[in-house]
This record gives sequence, structure tokens and C-alpha cells, in this order.
Amino acid sequence: MQLSVRIHDSFWSEYIRLVKEVVVPYQWEALHDRVPGSEPSYAVRNFKIAAGLDHGEHGGMVFQDSDPAKWLEAVGYLLQTHTDPDLEAMADELISYMVKAQQADGYLNTYFTIKEQGKRWTNLAECHELYCAGHFIEGAVAYYRATGKRMILDAACKLADHINTVFGPEDGQIQGYDGHQEIELALVKLYRETGEAKYLELSRFFLEQRGQQPHFYLEEFEKRGGSVHFPQLDIAHDFAYSQAHLPVRNQETAEGHAVRVVYMCTGMADVAAETGDEDLLQACRKLWRNIVSKRMYLTGAIGSQEYGESFTYDYDLPSDTAYAETCASIGLIFFAQRMLQIEPKSEYANVMERALYNTVVSGMSRDGKRFFYVNPLEVDPARCRHNKNYAHVKAERQGWFGCACCPPNIARLIASLGEYIYTQKGETIYTHLYIGGEARFQIGETAITINQQSDYASIGQVHMKIAADHPNGMTFALRIPDWSDTLSVQINESAYTVDSEQFVDGYLRIHRIWKDGDTVDLDFGMPILRIRGHSSIRHTIGKTAIQRGPFVYCLEEADNGEGLHQIVLPAESELTVRSSPDMPADVPVIQAQAYREQLDGNDVPLYRYSRTDRQQLEEVSITFIPYFTWANRSKGEMTVWVREFH
Amino acid sequence: MQLSVRIHDSFWSEYIRLVKEVVVPYQWEALHDRVPGSEPSYAVRNFKIAAGLDHGEHGGMVFQDSDPAKWLEAVGYLLQTHTDPDLEAMADELISYMVKAQQADGYLNTYFTIKEQGKRWTNLAECHELYCAGHFIEGAVAYYRATGKRMILDAACKLADHINTVFGPEDGQIQGYDGHQEIELALVKLYRETGEAKYLELSRFFLEQRGQQPHFYLEEFEKRGGSVHFPQLDIAHDFAYSQAHLPVRNQETAEGHAVRVVYMCTGMADVAAETGDEDLLQACRKLWRNIVSKRMYLTGAIGSQEYGESFTYDYDLPSDTAYAETCASIGLIFFAQRMLQIEPKSEYANVMERALYNTVVSGMSRDGKRFFYVNPLEVDPARCRHNKNYAHVKAERQGWFGCACCPPNIARLIASLGEYIYTQKGETIYTHLYIGGEARFQIGETAITINQQSDYASIGQVHMKIAADHPNGMTFALRIPDWSDTLSVQINESAYTVDSEQFVDGYLRIHRIWKDGDTVDLDFGMPILRIRGHSSIRHTIGKTAIQRGPFVYCLEEADNGEGLHQIVLPAESELTVRSSPDMPADVPVIQAQAYREQLDGNDVPLYRYSRTDRQQLEEVSITFIPYFTWANRSKGEMTVWVREFH
Repeated sequence: MQLSVRIHDSFWSEYIRLVKEVVVPYQWEALHDRVPGSEPSYAVRNFKIAAGLDHGEHGGMVFQDSDPAKWLEAVGYLLQTHTDPDLEAMADELISYMVKAQQADGYLNTYFTIKEQGKRWTNLAECHELYCAGHFIEGAVAYYRATGKRMILDAACKLADHINTVFGPEDGQIQGYDGHQEIELALVKLYRETGEAKYLELSRFFLEQRGQQPHFYLEEFEKRGGSVHFPQLDIAHDFAYSQAHLPVRNQETAEGHAVRVVYMCTGMADVAAETGDEDLLQACRKLWRNIVSKRMYLTGAIGSQEYGESFTYDYDLPSDTAYAETCASIGLIFFAQRMLQIEPKSEYANVMERALYNTVVSGMSRDGKRFFYVNPLEVDPARCRHNKNYAHVKAERQGWFGCACCPPNIARLIASLGEYIYTQKGETIYTHLYIGGEARFQIGETAITINQQSDYASIGQVHMKIAADHPNGMTFALRIPDWSDTLSVQINESAYTVDSEQFVDGYLRIHRIWKDGDTVDLDFGMPILRIRGHSSIRHTIGKTAIQRGPFVYCLEEADNGEGLHQIVLPAESELTVRSSPDMPADVPVIQAQAYREQLDGNDVPLYRYSRTDRQQLEEVSITFIPYFTWANRSKGEMTVWVREFH
Repeated sequence: MQLSVRIHDSFWSEYIRLVKEVVVPYQWEALHDRVPGSEPSYAVRNFKIAAGLDHGEHGGMVFQDSDPAKWLEAVGYLLQTHTDPDLEAMADELISYMVKAQQADGYLNTYFTIKEQGKRWTNLAECHELYCAGHFIEGAVAYYRATGKRMILDAACKLADHINTVFGPEDGQIQGYDGHQEIELALVKLYRETGEAKYLELSRFFLEQRGQQPHFYLEEFEKRGGSVHFPQLDIAHDFAYSQAHLPVRNQETAEGHAVRVVYMCTGMADVAAETGDEDLLQACRKLWRNIVSKRMYLTGAIGSQEYGESFTYDYDLPSDTAYAETCASIGLIFFAQRMLQIEPKSEYANVMERALYNTVVSGMSRDGKRFFYVNPLEVDPARCRHNKNYAHVKAERQGWFGCACCPPNIARLIASLGEYIYTQKGETIYTHLYIGGEARFQIGETAITINQQSDYASIGQVHMKIAADHPNGMTFALRIPDWSDTLSVQINESAYTVDSEQFVDGYLRIHRIWKDGDTVDLDFGMPILRIRGHSSIRHTIGKTAIQRGPFVYCLEEADNGEGLHQIVLPAESELTVRSSPDMPADVPVIQAQAYREQLDGNDVPLYRYSRTDRQQLEEVSITFIPYFTWANRSKGEMTVWVREFH
């Protein structure tokens, strides 16, 4: 069992610091409606009102309770690795409101306690009660693990126990499920923490009920007289929006709201892992395959359209009207992590890395104060202003959101990043991500510490040092990133020759008697690669994207001027790295010689006739920056995919 | 003064026949709710109810009255050139309902007579009362000109007189205007027919009031207590949607709902022509320039987004999410025709031709039974089904529409096509369109008949024969199409040498003593041209489109298989014409050798890495068909713009 991971990484430590010193304190203020110029959150106030400590109306979304819960979860992760009495005191204050807001029977939801009393559990399809409960449970588990304080964990168990009486197969119980998956994965966490099998069973129940006929949404819709919470959607009838169109075992394509899909898959993988349900695992594999081979952006983003924040269909990946929600990539990372726990195959870790180093980090500004909800791969600020198809796309990160799901999601993911780096299976320790720091494992009687020093982000090199209380026969399984095309391995500073049989499922397996002080050096090379999309992707045809190491690159107006669509990159252009003081952690920018179509003046006709003439081109030098750093300078155009010269 | 034009044309006669034999009779049935499987129109029934001849509720849109009015107008045009007692009897029946539905004070609008009694003239911004009145007037004038029957013209005058009492600068009158322009151009028609200056003055009044402050929309909005007719829009406050953001003289860019813009411009040009208002004419020129040099599709379509059926901003011309409404191109033709009447410059006629031979004809199926409302330049049926950004785009023409503005608009335009071919200014007869038939003119004492035989659509050749009751010194001004790059002229079968001074504003001016029996032969050549978009158009960069004569071409899946985006056309590929039995009027298809990116299988990864490799290409033969004929075979992909190989 993996005991703990502390991160000291040239790339990630800064983000963890930002989360701790900027994001979490800022969100505390935001949750208390104390950020000037931002929409009030009402979230903490809702709990205080429900607790009888304040007066007034419920404010914010029906799922507003989930924001403080995610904040609490992030704090729990931070406190697991670093004590911080002030932060702990803030959390304890919040917890005191939450616990007071819990009803005598265990029910906890400020919206239905304050605003729609008596309507508990009447609109599961739309109203997120179990979703909020799930986030409360996740926050409680994280905080309990950090502090050992039972108050919040007891409240979570009381809530889960209450839910377990309301929902279930018996007469008088609701045979339903939440429109927004989350409770499923949270109940498995609670099961793992408490050992109470009823929570695992309840999670399985919710998954199995989903999409069954006669349809629960229609039944509850009729029962409540047809009232609707989100009139702009048709959630009660558009079953696919919330993945309720089929039983989960029968779903083969990722349909509907992208975040819900990946939260559902995470819960399915958790239950499959705990129950050994091979059929359920197979359903996870099918959905994974559909997402990553047909419906995922190069940046690990998912969700091709704004309507319903949803998937569309195979190979429909518009760069410009993308939804590509930060939360959806975070959910994809959850799903990948769960699959890695079940079957360590590098394809899961490759996607996890892609989403993490691109969409997730792009989701937050480099000062930790502003966020993207939508992460397009191509932006023109004029279109965002003047064409409604782009109204959801912002050319600048925002301070906060009316629906503020993304910022606390980034915070909790980065604060818990240590949980994504390694897994252990028997005597094998898998390294999925090359993030510097210290990780402790226990293999049989042997305590093992891996100290990873990583220059992975900048030059693709990793140094690992093993500490073991006595020599031990075990296997190190080291992921070979999908972008690496050379590999050099040293053990104890001597070249290590790799046998092809050592490559299994994308991991290099090194079995030996590892001794205290052994070192492993990995060099994955750091080729600058041109990416080409599958020929069925309409939006990337004839274009190329640039990737170096885990980072997808992009062109920005700040470096390359207006009209990025006019740039063409010859296939034979050399791509060279150049270090830049503006870039974090020595991640370089990339330069190339390219061409730009001559800018036509305002007086040039809209359409030109010719029998033969060609577009006039001028040679230009262009600069690619890592995608995650875009929109940290002036507001302007950006594109990941660039037209390529044949 | 031009007396009359009868069309006998290899291309257009078939469309006129379709309008007469299929479209107009079909629309008669549709207006009577007798088309099985189509949404009922309610339009005739509304008039019967308002006339006291039937009972029930008002049905259809608030502007439903305009559909029968446009039908009547089309019938008027048809009867102007061919008598048809059955058709005339149908029209007289409709007219009898309309006249009975007119109120004693002259008011005529079934919606406010049946459904919202007492709310006349309370929501001009949204409710189309003057718009419907305008269409009634246009229908009345056309029908009166054809038949000399005064009943409908008298009703129109009575309605206009009523409006003239309600609206005006005096106290107690409304200083307002309609959200949807149409009354302005209709009143000028009524003025020209009756000679009553008050109608011209009223038209001018409506134009001048538009966009003045304090804003009329806000005043009437408050007066009616803030009620809203179209809640999905915000017409009362989004002034630009209906071009009420500025006084019309100050508008320099085409903003908002595209049809309204061009109907407004048509009215402005009409008033400028009649009043000699140079400032107003200058405003027309500015809006024209903005549309045709920044905001028009290659097919003469306008309106870049579905939201508000509207313009967006300069050079924003997405091929796939285009709105490109048929009616908007028809309105652009109206505007061009009015400008040609004022100042014969070929740029107006070139755009008129572009819109007419591409978007307008594409708007109707080749059997006259189905119609496009939206005319995209790129379609993928899968996107229309699965991605909401494309929900307004249909891959097949529809039988009828809930908002059925386009089919009767096509009918009335084609039925009146004779009005667009020539204009006369003093002793100069301008030929704008090369459409075969007979046109009679009077120049001083001389009656002139031009008999045009046109193979313009198929081979770019025109033969004209002059009949004159005695020889006459006059000028023939013949438009040189913008796509022509060679010109050969014969007079009386002898080569005629053209002097450069004879080219004025895009017209070849031939002044001579024309005698009875003189002939002119024109050969414009028929080059197959590659079109390139202005480099500021993001959506056409790196692509080319094909045009031959007046026709823009496109690729269709039926000829070229699935995945049209995979096709690349080398810049040096020869383009060859091939006659095709499927195409109307000997318009050929065009073939070329091209390449297609190798189709990746389902098992190919979504993104491929490479340092150097190139996309594998296979040579293919591709077939372009004229854009107007697309979607007449199976449902499938279509694209006008094709990627070009550099």
C-alpha cells in the first residue's frame, strides 16, 4: 500500500504553492461573498442559513453546496502533506456550519432546506441532491484523513445512511438515481475509509438503476406534476444528456454532458475494482475507448459543444466552438486513475498526462487568480464578441463564475496530485507520472522510499533514488510516454540494456534486487513532434499541431500578430527550442520558419478570380508557446492547429 | 419606359413554368392547410375568420398574413405576361376574403383583428403589422397591374391612408416604425402606381424615424407594460437586430437581421431615387459596400449566424454554420435592382446575378416542391443531426416551413424576373442580365423590341435582335460579367472592334443608329475560374472554389464519396467541363484530378505523432456540380470551398 507522496517538483510545486497560497484563500473569500466585483457565491451563507445562524434566501445554483465541499476536499489534501493551523481553523469553521445545517434524520442540502422545503428527492434528474451529497462525502473523507477529526466523517456517514434508507430496492424506497453522477464514486471512497459494505452496495445500486425502464425520470416527472428546474434543457426527457438512455453496462459511446460521463465511469471503475465485476469493467473499457479514440481533443479536453456541455459524435472535434470544460478533463483524469489501479496500461496514464499538462493547467492563470471554464483550441476574440456560436468561449480567464465548478475542481486535483503518480500492485511499483518528490511504499516487510528528481517537463529526464530498509526483490514499472521516441536508462549510473520483453503495456519493467541507494536515470528524449489528426476529423485536416514532451503548443497573437489563420508551416520546416524567461520551469518556446499569406487590404475584393495565380506568401518566423501558458499576456487570437504546407 | 418583358430562356423558362404549374398551385394548397403531412399554414383561414366567414382562433406566426400577400403578388406577375382564368379566379377568391377582412377604418391584419383585439400598433418592434401591410400593398399593385381590377388596389390605398392617419409627425400620431422593414418599399410602389405623393412621404417618414432618440422601441415597450412577443430574442432593446441602433443615414455597416437590412436599403434607394436625396443615396452606397466587400458569401448569400438570422462582423463568413437565408439573397437582389435604376454600375448587376444563379435557385428543388430556408456552403448531415450549432442547417430541402417566408419569396421573384433584366435611362438601354426573351421599350417616338436568345448559362453566348419601327440613334449598354475574361462582339454578324472608352462602369456602350433587324452577338468566353477568398476570411483560407460563368460549383458526396474535407485540389490541376444529362439547360459538370488523404480506419489513433512523415495521398478524380443543383439526389455532404495544394 502506498503510504504518502510529497511533491517537490520544478514544474508542479509552484502550482501546489499557488493552490495553497492563492487559490484556496481566494476561494474562501469568494465562498463568503467577499470578492469585490465578483458575483456573490452565497455558498457559505446558505449553510449558515440552513444551520439557523443567519437569515435570508438561498442563493446561487441548486448545486451551490458542492463548492464549499470541494474547497474542503482541497484543504484536506493540502493538510495531508503540510500542517497549517490557520487553514485547519478555517475548515473547522466551515464544518461547524455544515454539521449544524444537517437535519436530524441526516439529510443535508441547503437548497431544499431553505428554498424548496418539502420537495426533497422529487427531482433527482435535475436538482443535484445526491451530487452535492457526494461532494460532501469526498470532502469529509479527505479532511478526516488529514486531521483524524471525526465530526465531518460522522456527518458524512449519517448522510449516507439517510440516503441508504431513502433509496433502495424495497417498497417505499426510491428506485432512482441522480441526474449528475458523483455520489457513486464518493460512496466507494466512504466504503474504503470505513469498511462499511453498505456504501459500496448503495453505489452499485445507483449505477445499476441508471437507464432502466420504465424510466425513473418520467416517473418522478409525472409524480411532481411536470415541474422543470432548468427550462433551457429537457433533462427529464433527453435521457442521453445524463447518460440515462441505456443501462450503464450497455453504453458504448460517450453521450451527453461530458463531466457526468467521466464521473459515472469513475464510479463504475471503482465498483468494478471492488466487486471484480468483469462485465462492468468491460463497459468502462468501451466508454474509455470511445472517448480517447473518437471524442477527445489533443489537449485531453472533452465535450465538443456548448449545448448541454456535451459530447456530440465520433470525430467531431471543432477547435473553435469546443466546450472542453476544465472539470471534464479533471473527471477524465479520475477515470484514468481508476483504470490504472485496475490494469496498469500506459494508455490511461498517457491520457491522464495529456489532460493534466494541457487542459487542467491551462484552466488556471499563472497567478492562480483567474480561470477558464471552456478551453478552446482556437480563439479569435472578435468572434467571441460578435458571433453567438462563440458566446461561451472567453478569450481571457475569468475571476469567478456563477456556476463555479471549475476553480475548486482544479484546486482539489492539484492538491491531491500525489495520488496520481504511482500505483502498487503486489511487488510492482508503477510510475505513471514523472513528478518530483518523495513517495513511501510498503512491500511485505520492506519500507521503500522513492525519491524522484524530475526535469521531465523541461528536458524529459528523471532521476530516481531508492531508499529501502533492506534489499528487496521487486519490480519497477516505468511508463514510457507515448511521445518519447528514444529511451536511455541508467541504473546506478551505468547504462542499462533493455530487453524487448521488459516492455509490457507501455511500461518498462525492471525486476531486480533493489538496494538502498540504488538510482535509476531515465532519458526519454524530448523530440518536437508534429501531430496529425485522424483523417475523419474535419477540423484538423491539412493542419498540424506541435507537441514537445507532455506539452501541446499553440500560436498566440502576442508573438505572431493578428490573423493566425494566414500562417502556413511547411512540412520540412525545422522546429527549434528557445528558452524563454517568460515560461515557467524552463519549458521552452519553439520557433520555426513559416509563411504567411499576404494580408489583403480593406479595398481588396472579397473574392478574387484567377485561372492560375497563387496566393502570395511571405516568409515569417513564428513562435509556439506551451498551450497551458496562453492568455497570460494580452487578449488575442490563439490556435493549436496550424495549416501545413504540402 | 420599359413596357414589358416576356422570358423565353433555356435556363429560366423552366423555373417560371415550375413557379406557375407547381409552386403557386402547391402554395395555394398549403395556404389552405390542404397539404398532407405539412404543418398547417392557417393563412387563408385567418383571413376568412377576420372576414366573418369562418370561426376559430388565429393560427401561425404574427406575420402569417404576408404569405398569401406574397402568393398574390407572384400571381400578379404571372398574369402580367400570361392570362390564366383559373389562376385569376383563385386570386379573386382570396382577394374577396382579404377585402372583407379589412376593417371599416382601413385597418387590415388578421392577428390583431382575431387574437389580440385592442392591441393594434402597440408592439411595432416585434409584431410586423406594417410589414404585413407592405406585402399586402405589393400584392395589390402587382395584381392590379396584371388585371386592372381596382378592388385590391383600392383596399391597399385605404389601408395606406389609414396608416397615414395613425403614423406621422403630428401630436396624437405615432412617431414610430416597424421592426421589420417592408412598408417603406411598398409605399413607393403604391406611390408610383397611383401618383399620390403622400405615400412617398409616408415611406420617407418611416425611414427617417428609424433609430432616432429617444428610442421608439423603449417608449412603446413601457407603454404596453413590457410585454414581449418573441421572448427568445430581445428585440425591444437589441436595436441593431432591426437596424434601429442609428438613424438610417448614419448606418455604415450591415448589422442584425439580414433580410431587414436589405429590405430597408431597398426602401432607402427607392426614396432616394424619387426625391433625389443624395445623402440618403450615399447611405445606400455605404451599406452596399459593407455587404458586398465584407459580409457576403460567394453564392450571394448573406447572414453569417443563426442567432437573429443575422450579420455578424467583417469577414466572418463560416461556410458551415451560415444562415444565408434565401429571402435575404432575394432582398439583396431587390436592393441591387434599385441601385441599378439609379446608377447603372455592373457591380450591382454582378451581385444580383451571383445571388440569383446560386442562392435563389438553390433555394428550390428542381421539381419545385421543396425549399431551403438556410443555404450553407458546406454541409455534413451527421453534424446537422448531432451538433446543435448546426441544428438550423438542413441537408435536404423541406416541403414547407412554420415560418414560410422563403417559398413565396422565390415564387414572386422568379415570376417577376423580367423586371431585373433591363433598365432604360434616356436613350440608353442597359442589359443587366442575359436572359432570353422579348422586351419592348419606347425611346421618344420609336418603339424598340429586343429579342434576346441566350446560351449564357451554358456557354456564355448571347444573340440579340433589334426590332425598331424606324432607325434610331440610341445606346446599347451591355454588362460585362465580372467572371468574363475574353469578349467577342459581332454586330450584324461582323466582328465589332471595341474601344476602351466604350467601357463605362462595367458596361460596354454601343452607340449607333440601330435599325430594324440589327443583331448583336456576344461571347463572354466561359472560363473555369478558381476563386480565392480575401485573406481575412478565416473560413476560406487555403481553399479554393470553382466558378464557371454565373455558377458557383460544389462537391457533393453523391459524386465524390464521404469525407469531402479529405480532398485536396492541386493548384495546377486542369479543370474540364463534361456535359451531364442530370444537369438542367446544358450546364456542365466540372472534373479535375485531385488527391484524397488516405482514409484512416476506425482503429487508427485519433492523433499521430511524427517528426517528418507526410500524410499519404491517393489520386482521385473529382466532380463539381453547380451549387444550385445540390441536394437533388441523395442526402449527403456538400462543400463549395475545397482545400488547395500549394
